Amino acid sequence: MTTVFVLNGPNLSRLGSREPDVYGGGTLVDLRAALEAHAGSLPTAAALSLDFRQTDSETELISWLHEAIDTGSPVIMNPASFTHYSYALRDAAAQVTGAGLTLVEVHITNPHAREEFRHTSVISGVATGVIAGFGFESYILGLDAVARRLS
Amino acid sequence: MTTVFVLNGPNLSRLGSREPDVYGGGTLVDLRAALEAHAGSLPTAAALSLDFRQTDSETELISWLHEAIDTGSPVIMNPASFTHYSYALRDAAAQVTGAGLTLVEVHITNPHAREEFRHTSVISGVATGVIAGFGFESYILGLDAVARRLS
Amino acid sequence: MTTVFVLNGPNLSRLGSREPDVYGGGTLVDLRAALEAHAGSLPTAAALSLDFRQTDSETELISWLHEAIDTGSPVIMNPASFTHYSYALRDAAAQVTGAGLTLVEVHITNPHAREEFRHTSVISGVATGVIAGFGFESYILGLDAVARRLS
Amino acid sequence: MTTVFVLNGPNLSRLGSREPDVYGGGTLVDLRAALEAHAGSLPTAAALSLDFRQTDSETELISWLHEAIDTGSPVIMNPASFTHYSYALRDAAAQVTGAGLTLVEVHITNPHAREEFRHTSVISGVATGVIAGFGFESYILGLDAVARRLS
Amino acid sequence: MTTVFVLNGPNLSRLGSREPDVYGGGTLVDLRAALEAHAGSLPTAAALSLDFRQTDSETELISWLHEAIDTGSPVIMNPASFTHYSYALRDAAAQVTGAGLTLVEVHITNPHAREEFRHTSVISGVATGVIAGFGFESYILGLDAVARRLS
Amino acid sequence: MTTVFVLNGPNLSRLGSREPDVYGGGTLVDLRAALEAHAGSLPTAAALSLDFRQTDSETELISWLHEAIDTGSPVIMNPASFTHYSYALRDAAAQVTGAGLTLVEVHITNPHAREEFRHTSVISGVATGVIAGFGFESYILGLDAVARRLS
Amino acid sequence: MTTVFVLNGPNLSRLGSREPDVYGGGTLVDLRAALEAHAGSLPTAAALSLDFRQTDSETELISWLHEAIDTGSPVIMNPASFTHYSYALRDAAAQVTGAGLTLVEVHITNPHAREEFRHTSVISGVATGVIAGFGFESYILGLDAVARRLS
Amino acid sequence: MTTVFVLNGPNLSRLGSREPDVYGGGTLVDLRAALEAHAGSLPTAAALSLDFRQTDSETELISWLHEAIDTGSPVIMNPASFTHYSYALRDAAAQVTGAGLTLVEVHITNPHAREEFRHTSVISGVATGVIAGFGFESYILGLDAVARRLS
Amino acid sequence: MTTVFVLNGPNLSRLGSREPDVYGGGTLVDLRAALEAHAGSLPTAAALSLDFRQTDSETELISWLHEAIDTGSPVIMNPASFTHYSYALRDAAAQVTGAGLTLVEVHITNPHAREEFRHTSVISGVATGVIAGFGFESYILGLDAVARRLS
Amino acid sequence: MTTVFVLNGPNLSRLGSREPDVYGGGTLVDLRAALEAHAGSLPTAAALSLDFRQTDSETELISWLHEAIDTGSPVIMNPASFTHYSYALRDAAAQVTGAGLTLVEVHITNPHAREEFRHTSVISGVATGVIAGFGFESYILGLDAVARRLS
Amino acid sequence: MTTVFVLNGPNLSRLGSREPDVYGGGTLVDLRAALEAHAGSLPTAAALSLDFRQTDSETELISWLHEAIDTGSPVIMNPASFTHYSYALRDAAAQVTGAGLTLVEVHITNPHAREEFRHTSVISGVATGVIAGFGFESYILGLDAVARRLS
Amino acid sequence: MTTVFVLNGPNLSRLGSREPDVYGGGTLVDLRAALEAHAGSLPTAAALSLDFRQTDSETELISWLHEAIDTGSPVIMNPASFTHYSYALRDAAAQVTGAGLTLVEVHITNPHAREEFRHTSVISGVATGVIAGFGFESYILGLDAVARRLS
Repeated sequence: MTTVFVLNGPNLSRLGSREPDVYGGGTLVDLRAALEAHAGSLPTAAALSLDFRQTDSETELISWLHEAIDTGSPVIMNPASFTHYSYALRDAAAQVTGAGLTLVEVHITNPHAREEFRHTSVISGVATGVIAGFGFESYILGLDAVARRLS
Repeated sequence: MTTVFVLNGPNLSRLGSREPDVYGGGTLVDLRAALEAHAGSLPTAAALSLDFRQTDSETELISWLHEAIDTGSPVIMNPASFTHYSYALRDAAAQVTGAGLTLVEVHITNPHAREEFRHTSVISGVATGVIAGFGFESYILGLDAVARRLS
Repeated sequence: MTTVFVLNGPNLSRLGSREPDVYGGGTLVDLRAALEAHAGSLPTAAALSLDFRQTDSETELISWLHEAIDTGSPVIMNPASFTHYSYALRDAAAQVTGAGLTLVEVHITNPHAREEFRHTSVISGVATGVIAGFGFESYILGLDAVARRLS
Repeated sequence: MTTVFVLNGPNLSRLGSREPDVYGGGTLVDLRAALEAHAGSLPTAAALSLDFRQTDSETELISWLHEAIDTGSPVIMNPASFTHYSYALRDAAAQVTGAGLTLVEVHITNPHAREEFRHTSVISGVATGVIAGFGFESYILGLDAVARRLS
Repeated sequence: MTTVFVLNGPNLSRLGSREPDVYGGGTLVDLRAALEAHAGSLPTAAALSLDFRQTDSETELISWLHEAIDTGSPVIMNPASFTHYSYALRDAAAQVTGAGLTLVEVHITNPHAREEFRHTSVISGVATGVIAGFGFESYILGLDAVARRLS
Repeated sequence: MTTVFVLNGPNLSRLGSREPDVYGGGTLVDLRAALEAHAGSLPTAAALSLDFRQTDSETELISWLHEAIDTGSPVIMNPASFTHYSYALRDAAAQVTGAGLTLVEVHITNPHAREEFRHTSVISGVATGVIAGFGFESYILGLDAVARRLS
Repeated sequence: MTTVFVLNGPNLSRLGSREPDVYGGGTLVDLRAALEAHAGSLPTAAALSLDFRQTDSETELISWLHEAIDTGSPVIMNPASFTHYSYALRDAAAQVTGAGLTLVEVHITNPHAREEFRHTSVISGVATGVIAGFGFESYILGLDAVARRLS
Repeated sequence: MTTVFVLNGPNLSRLGSREPDVYGGGTLVDLRAALEAHAGSLPTAAALSLDFRQTDSETELISWLHEAIDTGSPVIMNPASFTHYSYALRDAAAQVTGAGLTLVEVHITNPHAREEFRHTSVISGVATGVIAGFGFESYILGLDAVARRLS
Repeated sequence: MTTVFVLNGPNLSRLGSREPDVYGGGTLVDLRAALEAHAGSLPTAAALSLDFRQTDSETELISWLHEAIDTGSPVIMNPASFTHYSYALRDAAAQVTGAGLTLVEVHITNPHAREEFRHTSVISGVATGVIAGFGFESYILGLDAVARRLS
Repeated sequence: MTTVFVLNGPNLSRLGSREPDVYGGGTLVDLRAALEAHAGSLPTAAALSLDFRQTDSETELISWLHEAIDTGSPVIMNPASFTHYSYALRDAAAQVTGAGLTLVEVHITNPHAREEFRHTSVISGVATGVIAGFGFESYILGLDAVARRLS
Repeated sequence: MTTVFVLNGPNLSRLGSREPDVYGGGTLVDLRAALEAHAGSLPTAAALSLDFRQTDSETELISWLHEAIDTGSPVIMNPASFTHYSYALRDAAAQVTGAGLTLVEVHITNPHAREEFRHTSVISGVATGVIAGFGFESYILGLDAVARRLS
Repeated sequence: MTTVFVLNGPNLSRLGSREPDVYGGGTLVDLRAALEAHAGSLPTAAALSLDFRQTDSETELISWLHEAIDTGSPVIMNPASFTHYSYALRDAAAQVTGAGLTLVEVHITNPHAREEFRHTSVISGVATGVIAGFGFESYILGLDAVARRLS
């Protein structure tokens, strides 16, 4: 059974209390639960286990992407605000997709409907694909995307 | 049962023969079939019918969005190259989401991994969300997104 | 008696239901009625008849401008979102004013008080003049402008 | 009877001799007379008196806008070249419209058909509306706009 | 005998009356006649028939390019003002050259000697080549280019 | 006892009535009183008298800076909207700091949290320092800054 | 008694030896002592204790801002060079002020008088206010700002 | 005998004390004396009298240019920092040269060897010519330029 | 019989060995031969002789354009990489067309399909016309263009 | 004997497996060995020991630069993707060279021959020098540069 | 007696025939004669001989500047179109002024009143001063400037 | 034994007297001697002879690069100020590396620590590698780079 890395970037530990009118009232624990539930509901043939993590550290996110390569794990990543400037993360992400693994960039909100600086992603160019704007559903759709590409 | 408009913009009728190394070898007929099949596989409670269309005309796309508002239909739209300059389409799309309907912008390829001019979308800012880069799966994920938001 | 072309661009058929807090609650039918009434109230010497049209099609707008040249009709045009990118419309408009006819660009709202992309007009540079921000009154003022220039 | 402030910015005292091929041969005195005549021809119910002024001073223009707020007077303003850079004037103008008064920005010529730097207005974003390109008629249309909004 | 598509974009139906100091006094009928005559004068071995069309519609131009691919026809196209913004047309043109067919972008005038916005072409990057500035001769040279590449 | 010039730029005479949700409800008189009170509360050793002025005139602001140089007075200046374009004021301010005097640029609001054009200051580069965003407290902090630098 | 977080970003541990002509000869220990002394001198009613920290880690700075939210502590932050690019820090800072807490951005030097890249702050837009250019006094003024807003 | 207007813009009254390493140690009185002496040394046939003025007021500079037009006086103008943004001054200057009078823009220093913002002049495009970088000699050369053009 | 100058800029002597996948395998000698052959095949009435030259020197290219003016010779010029920056060459070319002579700018490849810096031509704005992208045929078409304009 | 810090930034631990067609097949261990070997081969007079490190952490890189200052060690640094945005690293590097120590910025590949974002370095401006494009040899040349500057 | 180098850049040999409406009808020989005459009319104490040259070669212009340094000659240079891009010429000019010699950049026309690309000079920043827009008089004023600085 | 071309661009003949605080006091003769000495010290197996040249001519530099290709010689080139704009040199350099030869771009100073225009190199993108900032050592390191790549 394939393990999917679900990686969350800076400030996402604050979900629920952080600008709830923007990000909704659910917490990261809620998100994880919803995603685990969805993983559990996938048909057996497409069964996936999740390795759900969060960090405020660019370094740690990079190391997790390295780990994903070494373990051959597909990745769902919400780079949060690193999206807009972390070329170090981009270079790590490029290795994931360069190794033939799926890397889905997800965003809870729709960055294009927010401040100007959120319209630019330095990650998207090396991701497999991007899903943004559906709230927590962005992750669930990301998981479906991974499941379909594996099957 | 809700009908979902699946709207395809210019040149998408050429799928299969158009740059198959970029867009894949499947045709628009194949895409429609896959999407219909997926719609049919949704649980009864979330049953959706599809109204699948393609046009090379900005005017027609706009009228279809008007029609979606009038019929209360959620929309999955691949604006193709209109994505990059059609503010007329944007203004129509803004009415769809302004009316409380879901509008998912989908792309077969990942525009951020292609030419510079494809990195800008004048549509994304008024869409509910964006799904890009998963081939025909982008549409299927878009359908799931619509289904989930309806339930 | 001179006939004035009153030409409306994309999405203006949706007036009344489209973002009423931005565009007001009046419909295109209301607008036409108000404008006809105003035309009827002009002094006999300045009597004008109106040819009031709307289209979501860039092609049709262009053909109407060609028609205006051929019939020697002054034009009041609200290019709506074509304002911001349709150089084809600009080239047609340039022929109208190049033929010595009046072409008034009107806008219901004040584009400079809205999104950044609405601050640029590719039409204004070849129009006789611009009137923006007065709601439906923008058209009425435009009609007055035409009437005065004819007398 | 409402008094409308008609405020003219720098260099407009030179009308008639200043680039007559651009601005026409009429003088500021002519403009005032035409405008007074038009005000006099308005129906009694919409009777307006004019307070017509010109200055080359940014300071004085600002003080006149302050005065308009204090007297509750609508404003027709041709900011002339201040249009392109005077944020101080913009802030004063924003108070006029913020106080619920009409402020019409008028231009004799069509700035978009002239030098590049005339394409930018720092005033338009806070004006009620803009009328440009109709020669002295721009003011008359502006007066009509004020009259209509008062009635 | 190969049929060459000669496709003309928006406003070109107005040749002769449109800014004759810029475009010359010849009409589209004159242009067609001159081009037919030139086609007729080609050596038998290089005989070409022409399919000469004009439209103000982006949609129609796109469909003609699709038709050219399906019939294996080389294309001479004057995209007129679509040149500067129609990425939809660009994507269709890319399919023509991607299919191994010649597509010559022609312009009657020299866009680089005109307004700034005419200095940018979104089509050139996917055309076989560009010929601009020779009046109607641009088309005739374009036809020669096609003839030579076929032989 | 040193006299500190407290100089206020255009539109600041309107405090209290101007956009009170942005600038607060206090008037310039209130501001002066609060600042005088604070000056009076400073320890005797750091006693400062204030010369509190306001003008809408760029010329007058410049002359006051010249006067400050001649009298060796430190300056607290809120350049208001001149902040964004008055290089003449900048050149005068540069002489103040060039003469070894303290010049504190203050703003009631936080310009970086407002419109884009307020993010640029042509004054800051030649000021001793900048204090912004604390309401009337910005001035009081500015006075403290002057007092400390004098002691 | 409220505890104020005083947070220092990268390279500030080097104060005293780092470019003393730019930053002065005082060390971070000196800065802390001066700030503690000032806190001790505040009137009892406004008594504040300080939690003074420094880090070269973006991650740690973010976690400290999270901690400030959880403990309801106002923040004085010198983001040092993170000022110019760390959107992750910005998103954390936005939560501090979003939670109703004061966050003062301070700088020892005046960034606008230095290299071009220092003229842009991605933090200022979400800070309560900014104080820059007064050397160590910037912090003391920042502490005063916090004290006044608490009282 | 022709009178030449020698007009000095903002902050030039401070010459001698203002950044003497940049502008030199001479005062405006010294400059006037040197220029008067030079005027006196011109051959009788080219005799010129000077009207030497300075102001920090944009309004006054504009009125002086209007006066120059009315008296047919050539102008030597050092617009100082107005050079970089005063379109109002530009429009006044354009009238001077438009009236067939010589207007020489002079600068004591070489703006291109100083800060970036000094590299742009909004005046130069409508001046007869520009002389910059020669210290007070820039004015003397300007006077020679006027004298030669008159003879 | 008119002599046409065929002028080739820097690095074109290396044709055949230089990036043959971009420029083709033909040499400059081959190009000359093909062009001479084509000139020879023109009808007697349009007979042209060629003066075919190549240089890596901007100075020499300029002098050849001067020579063309003096001898009244039309010019076919491939400015190669000078295209993108040599304003000196532009000024010389402007004299050719200013003298009523034809100057055709030719390129072997299509610059718009190559690196970004090749998308800008400082020559095109003053050329009679441009022909690009047809390999050696670009020159032959250029010769036809010259021949037609002479007849 | 001087110890040289050889500092490697993010993702460089992946050398050998990361895009081997770009970075080559050698690993970081291979690089270290080659560099140690080269250090050993230097003449005794120029003997250098190496302290070879790698990290994905901006914080750690900064601390190592601080350490280099404290130990007076020259530095060879490959900042990897931090090159393009880490002003925190820049500020630390500026202290190294500000302290009179050599800091050589090295790159395995030639950044100017890769993506646009790699063309900008925020580090180069404060480095002693830059060596890029020679594969692992870049480091060896960097070591030679250090050795020569020490002798 | 000092010899002044008067150096003329590309295309200036064509004066008289080149765009006479822009540059006037005088030839370079006329210019030289006028300048020699003026040199001869200078008072004996300020006697100057001229070394008047023209070239279309950037290389030769550079060598002449080197020669000026070696002979200690002041320079009057009209760099013509090299003004806008020749950093090689700039570096040579910087040596002239760096050696304490006067270098006056002259232009016959006013570049700021012409095409956009002529508004930028890469030379001005290292010249002693600039004189532009006075026709041939620009040189004569330049000679006066040199004479005055020598005396 | 391989001959290495060492090519020096404009103004480098002036080394020693040109801005010695920037470029050092050594002359080009000194540089050549140091480089020859270093070449002589290379191990026999890596013996290289040097062909050391300097020119102020873009044309000559290009011809030398052509010569290098024809003789199979590696190149060390300091393009000096041509670095920033000579696309002609770039095209020649691209042929050198395209032919499989090493081309090392060297700079005496660190361009990124100097004026803005020196931060851009049009050569680097087609060079094998770049070495900058080490004074004359940049060349010696360049020679080592060549030697290592040959062995």
